[in-house]
Amino acid sequence: MNKKLIVNFTPTGMIPTKEMTPHVPISVSEIVEDVHKAHEIGITMVHLHARDKITGNPTYHKEIYAQIIEGIRKFAPELVICVSLSGRDFGELEQRADPLFLEGALKPDMGSLTLSSLNFNATASINSPKMVQDLASIMKEKGIVPELEVFDIGMLNYAKYLVRKELLQPPFYFNLLLGNIACAQANLLHTGVMVNDLPDEALWSLAGIGNDQLKMNSLSIAIGGGVRVGIEDNIWFDSERTTLATNANLILRIHTIAEANDRKIMKPAEFRTKMKIAQGPGKFGRESVT
Amino acid sequence: MNKKLIVNFTPTGMIPTKEMTPHVPISVSEIVEDVHKAHEIGITMVHLHARDKITGNPTYHKEIYAQIIEGIRKFAPELVICVSLSGRDFGELEQRADPLFLEGALKPDMGSLTLSSLNFNATASINSPKMVQDLASIMKEKGIVPELEVFDIGMLNYAKYLVRKELLQPPFYFNLLLGNIACAQANLLHTGVMVNDLPDEALWSLAGIGNDQLKMNSLSIAIGGGVRVGIEDNIWFDSERTTLATNANLILRIHTIAEANDRKIMKPAEFRTKMKIAQGPGKFGRESVT
Repeated sequence: MNKKLIVNFTPTGMIPTKEMTPHVPISVSEIVEDVHKAHEIGITMVHLHARDKITGNPTYHKEIYAQIIEGIRKFAPELVICVSLSGRDFGELEQRADPLFLEGALKPDMGSLTLSSLNFNATASINSPKMVQDLASIMKEKGIVPELEVFDIGMLNYAKYLVRKELLQPPFYFNLLLGNIACAQANLLHTGVMVNDLPDEALWSLAGIGNDQLKMNSLSIAIGGGVRVGIEDNIWFDSERTTLATNANLILRIHTIAEANDRKIMKPAEFRTKMKIAQGPGKFGRESVT
Repeated sequence: MNKKLIVNFTPTGMIPTKEMTPHVPISVSEIVEDVHKAHEIGITMVHLHARDKITGNPTYHKEIYAQIIEGIRKFAPELVICVSLSGRDFGELEQRADPLFLEGALKPDMGSLTLSSLNFNATASINSPKMVQDLASIMKEKGIVPELEVFDIGMLNYAKYLVRKELLQPPFYFNLLLGNIACAQANLLHTGVMVNDLPDEALWSLAGIGNDQLKMNSLSIAIGGGVRVGIEDNIWFDSERTTLATNANLILRIHTIAEANDRKIMKPAEFRTKMKIAQGPGKFGRESVT
Protein backbone atom coordinates (compact mmCIF):
# COMPACT_ATOMS: atom_id res chain seq x y z
CA MET A 1 0.00 0.00 0.00
CA ASN A 2 1.23 3.48 -0.83
CA LYS A 3 2.35 5.71 1.99
CA LYS A 4 -0.27 8.02 3.44
CA LEU A 5 -0.01 11.61 2.26
CA ILE A 6 0.69 14.32 4.84
CA VAL A 7 -1.28 17.45 3.97
CA ASN A 8 0.15 20.40 5.88
CA PHE A 9 -2.26 23.30 5.41
CA THR A 10 -0.86 26.85 5.47
CA PRO A 11 -3.84 29.19 5.17
CA THR A 12 -2.43 32.63 5.94
CA GLY A 13 1.34 33.24 6.20
CA MET A 14 2.87 36.67 6.75
CA ILE A 15 2.78 38.21 3.29
CA PRO A 16 -0.70 37.98 1.69
CA THR A 17 -3.07 40.88 2.38
CA LYS A 18 -6.72 41.44 1.58
CA GLU A 19 -5.53 43.87 -1.11
CA MET A 20 -3.59 41.04 -2.76
CA THR A 21 -6.41 38.52 -2.45
CA PRO A 22 -9.80 38.62 -0.74
CA HIS A 23 -9.41 34.87 -0.11
CA VAL A 24 -6.64 35.07 2.49
CA PRO A 25 -8.06 34.47 5.97
CA ILE A 26 -6.82 37.19 8.34
CA SER A 27 -9.17 37.45 11.31
CA VAL A 28 -9.50 34.70 13.89
CA SER A 29 -12.93 33.71 12.60
CA GLU A 30 -11.77 33.68 8.96
CA ILE A 31 -8.79 31.46 9.80
CA VAL A 32 -10.91 29.10 11.89
CA GLU A 33 -13.48 28.90 9.10
CA ASP A 34 -10.84 28.11 6.44
CA VAL A 35 -9.37 25.40 8.65
CA HIS A 36 -12.87 24.04 9.21
CA LYS A 37 -13.47 23.73 5.47
CA ALA A 38 -10.04 22.23 4.91
CA HIS A 39 -10.61 19.73 7.70
CA GLU A 40 -13.85 18.63 6.11
CA ILE A 41 -12.07 18.08 2.78
CA GLY A 42 -9.22 16.30 4.59
CA ILE A 43 -5.89 17.56 5.98
CA THR A 44 -3.33 16.21 8.42
CA MET A 45 -2.06 19.35 10.12
CA VAL A 46 -2.28 23.12 10.02
CA HIS A 47 0.53 25.70 10.13
CA LEU A 48 -0.88 28.87 11.70
CA HIS A 49 0.18 32.50 11.47
CA ALA A 50 -1.70 35.00 13.62
CA ARG A 51 -2.58 38.50 12.44
CA ASP A 52 -3.31 41.64 14.40
CA LYS A 53 -7.02 42.35 14.75
CA ILE A 54 -6.73 46.03 13.78
CA THR A 55 -3.88 46.21 11.26
CA GLY A 56 -3.96 42.72 9.77
CA ASN A 57 -0.17 42.57 10.17
CA PRO A 58 1.57 39.48 11.53
CA THR A 59 1.60 39.25 15.32
CA TYR A 60 3.39 36.94 17.72
CA HIS A 61 0.90 37.40 20.57
CA LYS A 62 -0.17 34.10 22.11
CA GLU A 63 -3.61 35.54 22.89
CA ILE A 64 -4.48 35.56 19.17
CA TYR A 65 -3.07 32.08 18.68
CA ALA A 66 -5.15 30.96 21.67
CA GLN A 67 -8.36 32.16 20.02
CA ILE A 68 -7.54 30.39 16.76
CA ILE A 69 -6.55 27.16 18.50
CA GLU A 70 -9.66 27.20 20.68
CA GLY A 71 -11.82 27.73 17.60
CA ILE A 72 -10.19 24.86 15.67
CA ARG A 73 -10.29 22.37 18.52
CA LYS A 74 -14.05 22.79 18.88
CA PHE A 75 -14.61 20.92 15.61
CA ALA A 76 -11.28 19.08 15.18
CA PRO A 77 -9.66 18.31 18.53
CA GLU A 78 -7.34 15.76 16.90
CA LEU A 79 -6.01 18.04 14.11
CA VAL A 80 -2.25 18.62 14.53
CA ILE A 81 -1.67 22.32 15.17
CA CYS A 82 1.63 24.07 14.48
CA VAL A 83 2.23 27.72 15.42
CA SER A 84 4.65 29.97 13.57
CA LEU A 85 7.68 31.20 15.50
CA SER A 86 8.91 33.24 12.55
CA GLY A 87 11.43 35.98 13.10
CA ARG A 88 10.76 37.78 9.84
CA ASP A 89 9.11 40.66 11.71
CA PHE A 90 10.04 40.00 15.35
CA GLY A 91 13.59 39.90 16.63
CA GLU A 92 13.41 38.94 20.29
CA LEU A 93 13.26 35.45 21.76
CA GLU A 94 10.49 36.53 24.13
CA GLN A 95 8.35 37.58 21.17
CA ARG A 96 9.07 34.60 18.96
CA ALA A 97 8.58 32.06 21.76
CA ASP A 98 5.35 33.64 23.04
CA PRO A 99 2.92 31.07 21.52
CA LEU A 100 4.96 28.23 23.12
CA PHE A 101 3.69 29.32 26.52
CA LEU A 102 0.08 28.37 25.80
CA GLU A 103 -0.98 25.49 28.02
CA GLY A 104 -3.65 22.88 28.58
CA ALA A 105 -6.32 22.82 25.88
CA LEU A 106 -4.54 25.68 24.08
CA LYS A 107 -1.08 24.10 23.89
CA PRO A 108 0.12 23.83 20.28
CA ASP A 109 1.37 20.42 19.13
CA MET A 110 4.20 21.91 17.11
CA GLY A 111 6.16 25.13 16.53
CA SER A 112 8.02 26.19 13.40
CA LEU A 113 11.83 26.30 13.57
CA THR A 114 13.77 27.85 10.68
CA LEU A 115 17.25 26.40 10.86
CA SER A 116 19.41 29.32 9.73
CA SER A 117 19.38 32.93 8.60
CA LEU A 118 18.43 33.43 4.97
CA ASN A 119 17.19 36.05 2.52
CA PHE A 120 13.68 36.24 1.19
CA ASN A 121 12.82 38.40 -1.83
CA ALA A 122 12.98 41.76 -0.14
CA THR A 123 14.14 41.08 3.41
CA ALA A 124 16.58 39.06 5.48
CA SER A 125 15.12 36.49 7.86
CA ILE A 126 17.44 36.44 10.85
CA ASN A 127 17.64 33.24 12.87
CA SER A 128 20.98 33.33 14.66
CA PRO A 129 22.50 30.09 15.96
CA LYS A 130 21.61 31.16 19.51
CA MET A 131 18.01 31.98 18.57
CA VAL A 132 17.54 28.63 16.82
CA GLN A 133 19.00 26.76 19.78
CA ASP A 134 17.00 28.74 22.34
CA LEU A 135 13.72 28.10 20.52
CA ALA A 136 14.59 24.38 20.18
CA SER A 137 15.42 24.23 23.85
CA ILE A 138 12.12 25.81 24.96
CA MET A 139 10.19 23.45 22.66
CA LYS A 140 12.06 20.45 24.05
CA GLU A 141 11.27 21.53 27.61
CA LYS A 142 7.60 22.13 26.82
CA GLY A 143 7.07 18.97 24.75
CA ILE A 144 6.25 20.95 21.62
CA VAL A 145 7.55 19.32 18.45
CA PRO A 146 9.60 21.46 16.05
CA GLU A 147 8.39 21.76 12.48
CA LEU A 148 11.82 22.01 10.86
CA GLU A 149 11.87 24.58 8.06
CA VAL A 150 14.57 23.99 5.44
CA PHE A 151 15.17 26.49 2.62
CA ASP A 152 18.61 25.35 1.48
CA ILE A 153 20.71 22.24 1.83
CA GLY A 154 22.92 23.48 4.66
CA MET A 155 19.94 23.75 6.97
CA LEU A 156 19.64 19.96 6.96
CA ASN A 157 23.19 19.75 8.20
CA TYR A 158 22.30 22.15 10.99
CA ALA A 159 19.36 19.95 11.98
CA LYS A 160 21.77 17.02 12.33
CA TYR A 161 24.03 19.21 14.45
CA LEU A 162 21.08 20.03 16.76
CA VAL A 163 20.37 16.29 17.03
CA ARG A 164 23.97 15.72 18.17
CA LYS A 165 23.52 18.50 20.73
CA GLU A 166 20.34 16.71 21.88
CA LEU A 167 18.20 19.75 21.13
CA LEU A 168 16.13 17.73 18.65
CA GLN A 169 14.75 14.23 19.22
CA PRO A 170 13.43 11.79 16.63
CA PRO A 171 11.05 11.30 14.99
CA PHE A 172 11.46 14.53 13.01
CA TYR A 173 9.17 16.47 10.71
CA PHE A 174 10.65 18.64 7.93
CA ASN A 175 9.18 21.15 5.51
CA LEU A 176 11.48 21.39 2.49
CA LEU A 177 10.65 24.77 0.92
CA LEU A 178 11.90 25.25 -2.63
CA GLY A 179 11.94 28.26 -4.90
CA ASN A 180 12.92 31.24 -2.77
CA ILE A 181 15.18 33.45 -4.82
CA ALA A 182 18.32 33.14 -2.66
CA CYS A 183 17.66 29.54 -1.60
CA ALA A 184 17.42 26.09 -3.17
CA GLN A 185 15.41 26.09 -6.38
CA ALA A 186 12.34 24.04 -7.27
CA ASN A 187 14.19 21.61 -9.55
CA LEU A 188 14.91 17.90 -9.32
CA LEU A 189 18.59 18.29 -8.51
CA HIS A 190 18.15 20.62 -5.54
CA THR A 191 15.10 18.76 -4.25
CA GLY A 192 16.88 15.45 -4.70
CA VAL A 193 19.87 16.57 -2.66
CA MET A 194 17.57 17.71 0.15
CA VAL A 195 15.58 14.49 0.26
CA ASN A 196 18.84 12.53 0.09
CA ASP A 197 20.23 14.45 3.07
CA LEU A 198 17.26 13.92 5.40
CA PRO A 199 18.16 12.13 8.64
CA ASP A 200 16.63 8.78 9.55
CA GLU A 201 13.21 8.83 11.19
CA ALA A 202 12.06 11.90 9.27
CA LEU A 203 8.61 12.65 7.88
CA TRP A 204 8.65 15.46 5.32
CA SER A 205 6.63 17.62 2.98
CA LEU A 206 7.60 19.62 -0.09
CA ALA A 207 6.57 23.24 -0.46
CA GLY A 208 7.08 25.58 -3.40
CA ILE A 209 6.90 29.36 -3.47
CA GLY A 210 4.45 30.98 -5.89
CA ASN A 211 4.03 29.03 -9.13
CA ASP A 212 6.35 26.35 -7.74
CA GLN A 213 3.77 25.23 -5.16
CA LEU A 214 1.80 22.96 -7.50
CA LYS A 215 4.98 21.58 -9.09
CA MET A 216 6.55 20.67 -5.74
CA ASN A 217 3.29 19.31 -4.31
CA SER A 218 2.71 17.09 -7.37
CA LEU A 219 6.30 15.91 -7.35
CA SER A 220 6.03 14.99 -3.71
CA ILE A 221 2.79 13.07 -4.21
CA ALA A 222 4.52 11.15 -7.01
CA ILE A 223 7.57 10.15 -4.97
CA GLY A 224 6.04 9.47 -1.57
CA GLY A 225 6.48 12.74 0.33
CA GLY A 226 3.94 15.05 1.92
CA VAL A 227 2.70 18.46 0.78
CA ARG A 228 2.59 21.88 2.36
CA VAL A 229 -0.23 23.74 0.63
CA GLY A 230 -2.16 26.96 1.06
CA ILE A 231 -2.39 30.64 0.30
CA GLU A 232 0.65 31.36 2.49
CA ASP A 233 2.95 30.21 -0.34
CA ASN A 234 0.87 31.07 -3.41
CA ILE A 235 -2.15 33.30 -3.88
CA TRP A 236 -2.83 32.12 -7.46
CA PHE A 237 -4.60 28.99 -8.60
CA ASP A 238 -3.13 28.86 -12.11
CA SER A 239 0.37 29.47 -13.41
CA GLU A 240 -0.85 32.25 -15.73
CA ARG A 241 -2.02 34.08 -12.61
CA THR A 242 -5.50 34.78 -13.90
CA THR A 243 -7.45 33.13 -11.07
CA LEU A 244 -6.91 33.76 -7.38
CA ALA A 245 -6.76 30.61 -5.27
CA THR A 246 -9.00 29.79 -2.37
CA ASN A 247 -7.57 27.55 0.31
CA ALA A 248 -10.38 25.06 -0.31
CA ASN A 249 -9.62 24.87 -4.04
CA LEU A 250 -5.93 24.32 -3.41
CA ILE A 251 -6.70 21.42 -1.08
CA LEU A 252 -9.31 19.93 -3.40
CA ARG A 253 -6.73 19.86 -6.19
CA ILE A 254 -4.30 18.03 -3.91
CA HIS A 255 -7.02 15.46 -3.23
CA THR A 256 -7.59 14.98 -6.97
CA ILE A 257 -3.89 14.36 -7.63
CA ALA A 258 -3.54 12.17 -4.53
CA GLU A 259 -6.49 10.01 -5.52
CA ALA A 260 -5.15 9.49 -9.05
CA ASN A 261 -1.83 8.49 -7.51
CA ASP A 262 -3.52 6.07 -5.12
CA ARG A 263 -2.36 7.99 -2.08
CA LYS A 264 -4.75 8.44 0.83
CA ILE A 265 -4.53 11.49 3.11
CA MET A 266 -2.80 10.76 6.40
CA LYS A 267 -5.23 11.25 9.28
CA PRO A 268 -4.08 13.46 12.14
CA ALA A 269 -4.19 10.44 14.47
CA GLU A 270 -1.69 8.53 12.34
CA PHE A 271 0.63 11.55 12.19
CA ARG A 272 0.41 11.81 15.98
CA THR A 273 1.36 8.17 16.38
CA LYS A 274 4.26 8.38 13.93
CA MET A 275 5.55 11.62 15.45
CA LYS A 276 5.03 10.52 19.08
CA ILE A 277 2.64 13.40 19.62
CA ALA A 278 0.03 12.84 22.34
CA GLN A 279 -3.59 12.11 21.49
CA GLY A 280 -6.85 11.67 23.28
CA PRO A 281 -9.06 14.24 25.00
CA GLY A 282 -7.07 17.24 26.16
CA LYS A 283 -3.69 15.82 25.15
CA PHE A 284 -1.48 17.95 22.90
CA GLY A 285 2.19 18.17 21.98
CA ARG A 286 4.75 15.48 22.64
CA GLU A 287 4.86 13.65 25.90
CA SER A 288 7.76 15.17 27.74
CA VAL A 289 11.07 13.27 27.47
CA THR A 290 12.93 13.83 30.69
CA MET B 1 47.26 21.78 -21.80
CA ASN B 2 45.58 21.77 -18.41
CA LYS B 3 43.81 24.91 -17.26
CA LYS B 4 45.87 27.30 -15.22
CA LEU B 5 45.24 27.12 -11.47
CA ILE B 6 43.84 30.21 -9.73
CA VAL B 7 45.41 30.54 -6.28
CA ASN B 8 43.35 32.95 -4.20
CA PHE B 9 45.36 33.67 -1.04
CA THR B 10 43.43 34.49 2.16
CA PRO B 11 46.05 35.29 4.78
CA THR B 12 44.08 36.77 7.69
CA GLY B 13 40.26 36.62 7.76
CA MET B 14 38.17 37.86 10.68
CA ILE B 15 38.41 35.00 13.16
CA PRO B 16 42.04 33.93 13.80
CA THR B 17 43.85 35.73 16.62
CA LYS B 18 47.45 35.67 17.81
CA GLU B 19 46.22 33.61 20.78
CA MET B 20 44.93 30.97 18.35
CA THR B 21 48.04 31.01 16.17
CA PRO B 22 51.16 33.16 16.15
CA HIS B 23 51.28 32.68 12.37
CA VAL B 24 48.24 34.78 11.48
CA PRO B 25 49.33 38.15 10.05
CA ILE B 26 47.44 40.96 11.81
CA SER B 27 49.38 44.19 11.45
CA VAL B 28 49.82 45.93 8.12
CA SER B 29 53.47 44.96 7.93
CA GLU B 30 52.75 41.32 8.84
CA ILE B 31 50.06 41.06 6.16
CA VAL B 32 52.27 42.72 3.53
CA GLU B 33 55.14 40.40 4.46
CA ASP B 34 52.96 37.26 4.18
CA VAL B 35 51.66 38.40 0.80
CA HIS B 36 55.25 39.08 -0.27
CA LYS B 37 56.30 35.52 0.61
CA ALA B 38 53.21 34.07 -1.04
CA HIS B 39 53.83 36.10 -4.17
CA GLU B 40 57.37 34.78 -4.39
CA ILE B 41 56.08 31.21 -4.14
CA GLY B 42 53.32 32.00 -6.66
CA ILE B 43 49.71 33.17 -6.26
CA THR B 44 47.11 34.73 -8.54
CA MET B 45 45.22 37.02 -6.21
CA VAL B 46 44.90 37.99 -2.56
CA HIS B 47 41.73 38.39 -0.46
CA LEU B 48 42.48 40.96 2.24
CA HIS B 49 40.93 41.58 5.65
CA ALA B 50 42.16 44.60 7.60
CA ARG B 51 42.62 44.56 11.37
CA ASP B 52 42.65 47.39 13.87
CA LYS B 53 46.15 48.47 14.88
CA ILE B 54 45.43 48.51 18.62
CA THR B 55 42.88 45.75 19.21
CA GLY B 56 43.65 43.40 16.31
CA ASN B 57 39.90 43.17 15.63
CA PRO B 58 38.49 43.36 12.10
CA THR B 59 38.08 46.88 10.77
CA TYR B 60 36.40 48.27 7.68
CA HIS B 61 38.47 51.49 7.55
CA LYS B 62 39.84 52.19 4.11
CA GLU B 63 42.92 53.83 5.62
CA ILE B 64 44.18 50.45 6.84
CA TYR B 65 43.36 48.80 3.51
CA ALA B 66 45.24 51.66 1.82
CA GLN B 67 48.41 50.91 3.78
CA ILE B 68 48.22 47.19 2.96
CA ILE B 69 47.53 47.80 -0.74
CA GLU B 70 50.33 50.35 -0.97
CA GLY B 71 52.72 47.89 0.66
CA ILE B 72 51.79 45.04 -1.68
CA ARG B 73 51.92 47.08 -4.87
CA LYS B 74 55.53 48.10 -4.15
CA PHE B 75 56.70 44.56 -4.91
CA ALA B 76 53.76 43.13 -6.90
CA PRO B 77 51.90 45.85 -8.81
CA GLU B 78 50.19 43.24 -11.00
CA LEU B 79 48.85 41.05 -8.16
CA VAL B 80 45.03 41.03 -8.15
CA ILE B 81 43.84 42.58 -4.89
CA CYS B 82 40.40 41.91 -3.40
CA VAL B 83 39.17 43.72 -0.27
CA SER B 84 36.66 42.22 2.14
CA LEU B 85 33.29 43.95 2.41
CA SER B 86 32.11 41.53 5.08
CA GLY B 87 29.14 42.42 7.22
CA ARG B 88 29.90 39.92 9.96
CA ASP B 89 30.90 42.72 12.34
CA PHE B 90 29.67 45.86 10.54
CA GLY B 91 26.05 46.51 9.69
CA GLU B 92 25.97 49.77 7.73
CA LEU B 93 26.48 50.23 4.00
CA GLU B 94 28.78 53.20 4.63
CA GLN B 95 31.05 50.98 6.74
CA ARG B 96 31.05 47.97 4.46
CA ALA B 97 31.59 49.99 1.29
CA ASP B 98 34.37 52.12 2.78
CA PRO B 99 37.31 50.34 1.03
CA LEU B 100 35.57 50.77 -2.34
CA PHE B 101 36.27 54.49 -2.15
CA LEU B 102 40.04 54.07 -2.45
CA GLU B 103 41.26 55.54 -5.70
CA GLY B 104 44.20 55.77 -8.06
CA ALA B 105 47.14 53.59 -7.02
CA LEU B 106 45.17 52.40 -3.98
CA LYS B 107 42.03 51.27 -5.81
CA PRO B 108 41.28 47.60 -5.16
CA ASP B 109 40.70 45.37 -8.19
CA MET B 110 37.91 43.42 -6.51
CA GLY B 111 35.58 43.48 -3.49
CA SER B 112 33.93 40.51 -1.77
CA LEU B 113 30.16 40.14 -2.15
CA THR B 114 28.35 37.53 -0.04
CA LEU B 115 25.12 36.80 -1.87
CA SER B 116 22.69 36.19 1.01
CA SER B 117 22.30 36.11 4.77
CA LEU B 118 23.57 32.94 6.42
CA ASN B 119 24.66 31.54 9.75
CA PHE B 120 28.24 30.85 10.72
CA ASN B 121 29.10 28.71 13.74
CA ALA B 122 28.26 31.21 16.43
CA THR B 123 26.81 34.23 14.61
CA ALA B 124 24.49 35.28 11.82
CA SER B 125 26.05 37.04 8.84
CA ILE B 126 23.42 39.51 7.65
CA ASN B 127 23.49 40.52 3.99
CA SER B 128 19.99 41.75 3.20
CA PRO B 129 18.85 41.87 -0.44
CA LYS B 130 19.17 45.66 -0.35
CA MET B 131 22.69 45.54 1.10
CA VAL B 132 23.85 43.02 -1.52
CA GLN B 133 22.35 45.10 -4.33
CA ASP B 134 23.74 48.37 -2.97
CA LEU B 135 27.26 46.95 -2.69
CA ALA B 136 27.01 45.48 -6.20
CA SER B 137 25.79 48.81 -7.51
CA ILE B 138 28.67 50.76 -5.97
CA MET B 139 31.18 48.24 -7.34
CA LYS B 140 29.65 48.44 -10.78
CA GLU B 141 29.86 52.24 -10.70
CA LYS B 142 33.47 52.20 -9.51
CA GLY B 143 34.69 49.46 -11.85
CA ILE B 144 35.56 47.15 -8.96
CA VAL B 145 34.86 43.49 -9.71
CA PRO B 146 32.79 41.50 -7.23
CA GLU B 147 34.34 38.37 -5.75
CA LEU B 148 31.10 36.38 -5.43
CA GLU B 149 30.99 34.43 -2.16
CA VAL B 150 28.72 31.37 -2.26
CA PHE B 151 28.06 29.30 0.87
CA ASP B 152 24.97 27.39 -0.26
CA ILE B 153 23.34 26.56 -3.56
CA GLY B 154 20.66 29.24 -3.46
CA MET B 155 23.30 31.96 -3.54
CA LEU B 156 24.16 30.95 -7.10
CA ASN B 157 20.56 31.55 -8.06
CA TYR B 158 20.77 34.98 -6.49
CA ALA B 159 23.88 35.75 -8.55
CA LYS B 160 21.92 34.92 -11.70
CA TYR B 161 19.12 37.21 -10.49
CA LEU B 162 21.64 40.06 -10.07
CA VAL B 163 22.86 39.39 -13.61
CA ARG B 164 19.29 39.76 -14.88
CA LYS B 165 19.03 43.03 -12.93
CA GLU B 166 22.30 44.12 -14.63
CA LEU B 167 24.02 44.57 -11.28
CA LEU B 168 26.64 41.96 -12.25
CA GLN B 169 28.45 41.75 -15.58
CA PRO B 170 30.38 38.80 -17.00
CA PRO B 171 32.98 37.48 -16.73
CA PHE B 172 32.33 36.42 -13.12
CA TYR B 173 34.55 35.10 -10.34
CA PHE B 174 33.08 32.84 -7.64
CA ASN B 175 34.43 31.45 -4.39
CA LEU B 176 32.46 28.31 -3.51
CA LEU B 177 32.94 27.87 0.23
CA LEU B 178 32.04 24.45 1.59
CA GLY B 179 31.81 23.13 5.11
CA ASN B 180 30.17 25.82 7.20
CA ILE B 181 27.84 24.14 9.67
CA ALA B 182 24.57 25.65 8.38
CA CYS B 183 25.63 25.77 4.71
CA ALA B 184 26.55 23.35 1.94
CA GLN B 185 28.90 20.60 3.11
CA ALA B 186 32.30 19.64 1.76
CA ASN B 187 31.12 16.55 -0.08
CA LEU B 188 30.93 15.63 -3.75
CA LEU B 189 27.16 15.95 -4.02
CA HIS B 190 26.91 19.48 -2.64
CA THR B 191 30.05 20.63 -4.44
CA GLY B 192 28.84 19.03 -7.66
CA VAL B 193 25.51 20.84 -7.52
CA MET B 194 27.29 24.16 -7.02
CA VAL B 195 29.72 23.67 -9.88
CA ASN B 196 26.82 22.48 -12.04
CA ASP B 197 24.83 25.63 -11.25
CA LEU B 198 27.58 28.15 -12.10
CA PRO B 199 26.59 30.58 -14.86
CA ASP B 200 28.51 30.76 -18.13
CA GLU B 201 31.67 32.85 -18.18
CA ALA B 202 32.57 32.04 -14.58
CA LEU B 203 35.99 31.45 -13.08
CA TRP B 204 35.80 29.78 -9.68
CA SER B 205 37.74 28.45 -6.72
CA LEU B 206 36.81 25.96 -4.02
CA ALA B 207 37.33 26.75 -0.36
CA GLY B 208 36.81 24.53 2.67
CA ILE B 209 36.42 25.54 6.28
CA GLY B 210 38.87 24.05 8.80
CA ASN B 211 39.93 20.51 7.96
CA ASP B 212 37.90 20.74 4.75
CA GLN B 213 40.31 23.25 3.21
CA LEU B 214 42.84 20.70 1.96
CA LYS B 215 40.11 18.34 0.77
CA MET B 216 38.33 21.03 -1.25
CA ASN B 217 41.58 22.50 -2.61
CA SER B 218 42.81 19.09 -3.74
CA LEU B 219 39.46 18.23 -5.27
CA SER B 220 39.45 21.48 -7.19
CA ILE B 221 42.97 20.96 -8.50
CA ALA B 222 41.88 17.51 -9.68
CA ILE B 223 38.80 18.72 -11.57
CA GLY B 224 40.02 21.99 -13.06
CA GLY B 225 38.88 24.64 -10.55
CA GLY B 226 40.87 27.14 -8.55
CA VAL B 227 41.72 27.19 -4.84
CA ARG B 228 41.14 29.65 -2.05
CA VAL B 229 43.81 28.93 0.54
CA GLY B 230 45.21 30.51 3.69
CA ILE B 231 44.96 30.86 7.44
CA GLU B 232 41.60 32.68 7.15
CA ASP B 233 39.84 29.33 6.62
CA ASN B 234 42.10 26.96 8.56
CA ILE B 235 44.78 27.56 11.16
CA TRP B 236 46.01 23.95 11.16
CA PHE B 237 48.37 22.28 8.72
CA ASP B 238 47.31 18.69 9.46
CA SER B 239 43.93 17.11 10.04
CA GLU B 240 44.98 15.83 13.49
CA ARG B 241 45.52 19.48 14.43
CA THR B 242 48.97 18.95 15.87
CA THR B 243 50.81 21.49 13.69
CA LEU B 244 49.78 25.09 13.15
CA ALA B 245 49.88 26.19 9.52
CA THR B 246 51.87 29.07 8.14
CA ASN B 247 50.52 30.78 5.07
CA ALA B 248 53.71 29.92 3.20
CA ASN B 249 53.41 26.22 4.03
CA LEU B 250 49.80 26.12 2.91
CA ILE B 251 50.72 27.63 -0.44
CA LEU B 252 53.77 25.43 -0.89
CA ARG B 253 51.55 22.36 -0.41
CA ILE B 254 49.17 23.67 -3.11
CA HIS B 255 52.16 24.01 -5.42
CA THR B 256 53.21 20.41 -4.72
CA ILE B 257 49.74 19.06 -5.53
CA ALA B 258 49.37 21.34 -8.55
CA GLU B 259 52.71 20.25 -9.98
CA ALA B 260 51.89 16.54 -9.58
CA ASN B 261 48.57 17.25 -11.36
CA ASP B 262 50.34 19.10 -14.17
CA ARG B 263 48.58 22.35 -13.38
CA LYS B 264 50.53 25.60 -13.54
CA ILE B 265 49.61 28.55 -11.35
CA MET B 266 47.64 31.23 -13.18
CA LYS B 267 49.62 34.46 -13.28
CA PRO B 268 47.84 37.64 -12.15
CA ALA B 269 48.14 39.05 -15.68
CA GLU B 270 46.23 36.09 -17.15
CA PHE B 271 43.52 36.44 -14.50
CA ARG B 272 43.25 40.16 -15.34
CA THR B 273 42.82 39.38 -19.00
CA LYS B 274 40.22 36.68 -18.43
CA MET B 275 38.29 38.82 -15.94
CA LYS B 276 38.58 42.03 -17.98
CA ILE B 277 40.43 43.71 -15.14
CA ALA B 278 42.77 46.52 -16.18
CA GLN B 279 46.54 46.06 -16.23
CA GLY B 280 49.58 48.12 -16.81
CA PRO B 281 51.18 50.79 -14.61
CA GLY B 282 48.65 52.43 -12.32
CA LYS B 283 45.64 50.56 -13.75
CA PHE B 284 43.42 48.70 -11.33
CA GLY B 285 39.90 47.34 -11.26
CA ARG B 286 37.71 46.82 -14.28
CA GLU B 287 37.50 49.38 -16.99
CA SER B 288 34.23 51.10 -16.39
CA VAL B 289 31.30 49.83 -18.45
CA THR B 290 29.00 52.74 -19.11
